Amino acid sequence: MAQHFASDNYAGICPEAFAAFAEANSDHAMAYGDDEWTRRVSDRMRAIFETDCDVYFVFNGTAANSLALASLCQSYHSVICHEAAHVMTDECGAPEFFSNGAKLLAAAGEFGRISPDEVTRLVERRSDIHYPKPRVVTLTQATELGTLYRPEQIAAISERARQYGLRVHMDGARFANAVASLAVKPADITWRAGVDVLCFGGTKMGLPVGEAVVFFDRRLSEDFAYRCKQAGQLASKMRFLAAPWLGMLEDGAWLRRAAHANAMAERLSRGLADLPGLRLIAPTEANGVFVDLPAEVAAGLRRRGWRFYDFIGSAARFMCAWDIEAETVDALLEDARSLCEA
Amino acid sequence: MAQHFASDNYAGICPEAFAAFAEANSDHAMAYGDDEWTRRVSDRMRAIFETDCDVYFVFNGTAANSLALASLCQSYHSVICHEAAHVMTDECGAPEFFSNGAKLLAAAGEFGRISPDEVTRLVERRSDIHYPKPRVVTLTQATELGTLYRPEQIAAISERARQYGLRVHMDGARFANAVASLAVKPADITWRAGVDVLCFGGTKMGLPVGEAVVFFDRRLSEDFAYRCKQAGQLASKMRFLAAPWLGMLEDGAWLRRAAHANAMAERLSRGLADLPGLRLIAPTEANGVFVDLPAEVAAGLRRRGWRFYDFIGSAARFMCAWDIEAETVDALLEDARSLCEA
Amino acid sequence: MAQHFASDNYAGICPEAFAAFAEANSDHAMAYGDDEWTRRVSDRMRAIFETDCDVYFVFNGTAANSLALASLCQSYHSVICHEAAHVMTDECGAPEFFSNGAKLLAAAGEFGRISPDEVTRLVERRSDIHYPKPRVVTLTQATELGTLYRPEQIAAISERARQYGLRVHMDGARFANAVASLAVKPADITWRAGVDVLCFGGTKMGLPVGEAVVFFDRRLSEDFAYRCKQAGQLASKMRFLAAPWLGMLEDGAWLRRAAHANAMAERLSRGLADLPGLRLIAPTEANGVFVDLPAEVAAGLRRRGWRFYDFIGSAARFMCAWDIEAETVDALLEDARSLCEA
Amino acid sequence: MAQHFASDNYAGICPEAFAAFAEANSDHAMAYGDDEWTRRVSDRMRAIFETDCDVYFVFNGTAANSLALASLCQSYHSVICHEAAHVMTDECGAPEFFSNGAKLLAAAGEFGRISPDEVTRLVERRSDIHYPKPRVVTLTQATELGTLYRPEQIAAISERARQYGLRVHMDGARFANAVASLAVKPADITWRAGVDVLCFGGTKMGLPVGEAVVFFDRRLSEDFAYRCKQAGQLASKMRFLAAPWLGMLEDGAWLRRAAHANAMAERLSRGLADLPGLRLIAPTEANGVFVDLPAEVAAGLRRRGWRFYDFIGSAARFMCAWDIEAETVDALLEDARSLCEA
Repeated sequence: MAQHFASDNYAGICPEAFAAFAEANSDHAMAYGDDEWTRRVSDRMRAIFETDCDVYFVFNGTAANSLALASLCQSYHSVICHEAAHVMTDECGAPEFFSNGAKLLAAAGEFGRISPDEVTRLVERRSDIHYPKPRVVTLTQATELGTLYRPEQIAAISERARQYGLRVHMDGARFANAVASLAVKPADITWRAGVDVLCFGGTKMGLPVGEAVVFFDRRLSEDFAYRCKQAGQLASKMRFLAAPWLGMLEDGAWLRRAAHANAMAERLSRGLADLPGLRLIAPTEANGVFVDLPAEVAAGLRRRGWRFYDFIGSAARFMCAWDIEAETVDALLEDARSLCEA
Repeated sequence: MAQHFASDNYAGICPEAFAAFAEANSDHAMAYGDDEWTRRVSDRMRAIFETDCDVYFVFNGTAANSLALASLCQSYHSVICHEAAHVMTDECGAPEFFSNGAKLLAAAGEFGRISPDEVTRLVERRSDIHYPKPRVVTLTQATELGTLYRPEQIAAISERARQYGLRVHMDGARFANAVASLAVKPADITWRAGVDVLCFGGTKMGLPVGEAVVFFDRRLSEDFAYRCKQAGQLASKMRFLAAPWLGMLEDGAWLRRAAHANAMAERLSRGLADLPGLRLIAPTEANGVFVDLPAEVAAGLRRRGWRFYDFIGSAARFMCAWDIEAETVDALLEDARSLCEA
Repeated sequence: MAQHFASDNYAGICPEAFAAFAEANSDHAMAYGDDEWTRRVSDRMRAIFETDCDVYFVFNGTAANSLALASLCQSYHSVICHEAAHVMTDECGAPEFFSNGAKLLAAAGEFGRISPDEVTRLVERRSDIHYPKPRVVTLTQATELGTLYRPEQIAAISERARQYGLRVHMDGARFANAVASLAVKPADITWRAGVDVLCFGGTKMGLPVGEAVVFFDRRLSEDFAYRCKQAGQLASKMRFLAAPWLGMLEDGAWLRRAAHANAMAERLSRGLADLPGLRLIAPTEANGVFVDLPAEVAAGLRRRGWRFYDFIGSAARFMCAWDIEAETVDALLEDARSLCEA
Repeated sequence: MAQHFASDNYAGICPEAFAAFAEANSDHAMAYGDDEWTRRVSDRMRAIFETDCDVYFVFNGTAANSLALASLCQSYHSVICHEAAHVMTDECGAPEFFSNGAKLLAAAGEFGRISPDEVTRLVERRSDIHYPKPRVVTLTQATELGTLYRPEQIAAISERARQYGLRVHMDGARFANAVASLAVKPADITWRAGVDVLCFGGTKMGLPVGEAVVFFDRRLSEDFAYRCKQAGQLASKMRFLAAPWLGMLEDGAWLRRAAHANAMAERLSRGLADLPGLRLIAPTEANGVFVDLPAEVAAGLRRRGWRFYDFIGSAARFMCAWDIEAETVDALLEDARSLCEA
């Protein structure tokens, strides 16, 4: 199938990840994470984050986020998330399932970002036991609208969260794109800014399967391995989940590939913004472009074979995967231009 | 690491599986199972099972079994399983977690096998609402003691189960070994013998990750895709879970590889049984050898670097993976012999 | 404590309920519902509803609604409810807990009522497996704004629900007030209008403790007794839950008491609506009055010792319990009048 | 119905409890426990236990035990209980449901009692993440065989539990009988002996409905009110759950009534033990008599209208409720004697 913009998980495996995966396929290895690849990549994570964090590898983002949130709260607690957050809109009730009933509280906020005052509003709105007690704030970095939180924005939210005794979780399905775009150290937008747990996305970054759950506050990861096991998220041949991370992390491939995807999104964003009748609904800061598209343009693009998702209202979402080529972006732009000018 | 007998998941990826995995890594593909590999392997499954079954790919055996059982019962129901069944002893409460509380009822039975009369005993023991109502029987094929159920044994259990309104689930973590050893058609030990749902093990067969849940009674799989999604078991890049199955299933590799493992177990079993002081605790019918081992022999083997699991009492478990070599088996036997004769 | 308007559960036990409760306290009786009171009141329910329904007695409304909803859906399904519904706003995540993760979808609608088109909107909005599949519509009768659904309104919603394969649940915490106010037969606003399961409120009606779950479609109540038992909702001395219902139901006390509460609400509503600066935010159709109150009037009433709840925005909620006296209503009105004229 | 020995919940409400219940039924009262009865009885509990404990009132024993256990562990933990414990055999999976999957580990032990060494055995048996980690020991006082733990026995178990980081829970469905029989202070067999949480049984003691959960380690009760609310265990008219406790606790009625039941059990026990062919299977230390009964004697008693439960094997259980009369005991003995001598 040709390249598309519907989702960054349409892409395959990054060469660096594939090579490490293939290399791990030799001889026998201890199961369930007691192997050298898992050890090496966990150490590598600690180096990258410049702290002694706890790292767990699980199968997908649904599980990573849900397990992390479940470890931060009890069933009668609630989790503050943006109303457009993936955990709210696209996990089929997974956070509620894993936590056995914790409720998600929808925060408003421009461009997919939560503000400290929204945290305050949602915490202070109720204080009776008939409403689940807020216990966690979850941020998505990059957001569901392709924007980013800057370090100081995260720190401000974390500080507010702390005032209310809340923990801070980050859904980093596109964490690589965020780090590459912000040109910060990974620590600067995580633990140094008050994040307790990060779900570090592997699949969209170029892995075949798997995400990492990174606990910066190690007290929070007590017995987390049991939680993973019980929830069907402990891989027996763990080396095949871990090794691809090594390939991506060892020589900075993760950031190079993410930077490329970001650049392609920027190229697409600029091109679309120039067209008459098109309007970005959020600034393009990572690898997604969100644009209000006249219905006939959207229909025309689809007739020409392009795949992309509808977003809220008449908007469309174009995601740039790690492998998207400039030629593909330009071909899409060419088609869009001819449709807009028709 | 050298080859070992601790677990059949110490082995890597089967060449046939790897080749198909690598081949699937080209271009873009639709996510979440809407790709050609998933379609092709599902069709292939239907051909192999000679029936129009429903197939779902999930990440591991814990999830496969737990999701399948949860789809067959409600939280206040119970599941009859052998007291040595993996769901009972090694899933850290996963069946209870996925089903939100269904209880496992331990059945006794020689060599890891449940009998129809044990089903009757457990069903008829109680009939009040203070005890969870039996709703499912789960069989492990091959069993946790390396033995097999013959088609007529499965049929007898299924018939008994039907009398009580119970469904029949099969944990087929080593289903390939069972089919290869019994020399039956896959249908003969599943739906033709009354099995409603099979968890078909991929990992131990030679895949990097993933198991298949096969519903022979398609009414039972209604909304199962939602169940998988909510439970964090829907792979976004599904092709990488599906494609390796193609490699294994397309030219009978799955049965060849399983037959080899079985043969190696047979070789090991015969060799160990010949040694003075050693006694098999169950007949060797698949790829596992269970043997009562004098403590000093067990210790001696471990000193020489061999890895294997303790089993009940003073028994040891030796599993033969798909890639175990005759030389490795012979080397283990040689060491055992010298220890026994010492 | 004097009479108040904060909640209709501030009131004690209705004399008719108390007498039956006291009468049931003689000698021994079989436990867990196998007693004559439970049998008699269940039969009485079937007479009142003019159908062969299944009746279960549980401890409170949280449990009644949550267990009923859990019996109508699986964890990956969703439940359409009004955005102001008690299950959404005041159950601390109980529906999610009992169902192990089912999501509530908030429907908009004037005066606390859902419309058929809102059902359509919420069902048709999404059809992918990343969003929980709608499976139930729940209506609150009387609504959280003290309004009522007329039989034909319920029937229209049920018909729409059926088109989409949804079941219909009614939260009848104030069902008695609804029946008394609409002057209909209980069957007309339940099963004849397409309701599958009713949670019939006992506590607010005048019982010390307990609600009834009434299944009009008996296929839906299969094993419901097990569900109640597992969820801690099976009373051992069931007669004390059941008997008070007998007292209320046997000579129409439930409707007389509810009619009185409704009349008091009507008296209060008319009195408040006459005052300058006060505005009803919903018509008064049952036993609750919802009124926009200037902040200084609200504060003044509280200073004079009156208790009532804040509602959305600057509105206040005044609930009339079964025992509220006309003198109490008039005293509140007198205080409100003097504050408004100040 | 005449008096029987099947269950101590066949009995009605104790006069002292009834009087307090009736007295509480006056005027309005704040809902959800914010009333004077709840405050007074909580204070009374603290006086009786001579410590500043946290007290919660829930509807029944299933819920009390399950909520308490759920508050002491996570879903991937396990709970050590006697193999005959009510939570294991008669709660229809409630502990698993409330905890979302925690497993119960069956401890053996003579006369229904767990020993410290059994705790050690079950904790040390496994230490891998494939088996749920033990986190709680639960003791039943009086046990399911009508025996008692003496203070030093409880202390020994608690000490062992502490060594492994386990919490100690006591199922006190018949706590009153235990205190009355042992003639100890309530503190001596609870917190002074290392118990963290007690479920103090109200129903069997003579209440219409309701049990108390008493946290001696108040850190463990954080947010427990939310847990109760979410699980459908928060009574709106809480005064009717709380007041009966006042009646029982205020002048020692609870111990007088329990002592009477114990004395009746003693009378029955001695009488039965004297009969030829009958054999007590456990010493009679509280209000239950467990006796091996020839099948024809059991059948004969039932023909004469007596109700009692079968127990393990050919044993029968006779429970003496708070209201059982000496004449009833003697009538049963008379019938048993004539059957034995026939």
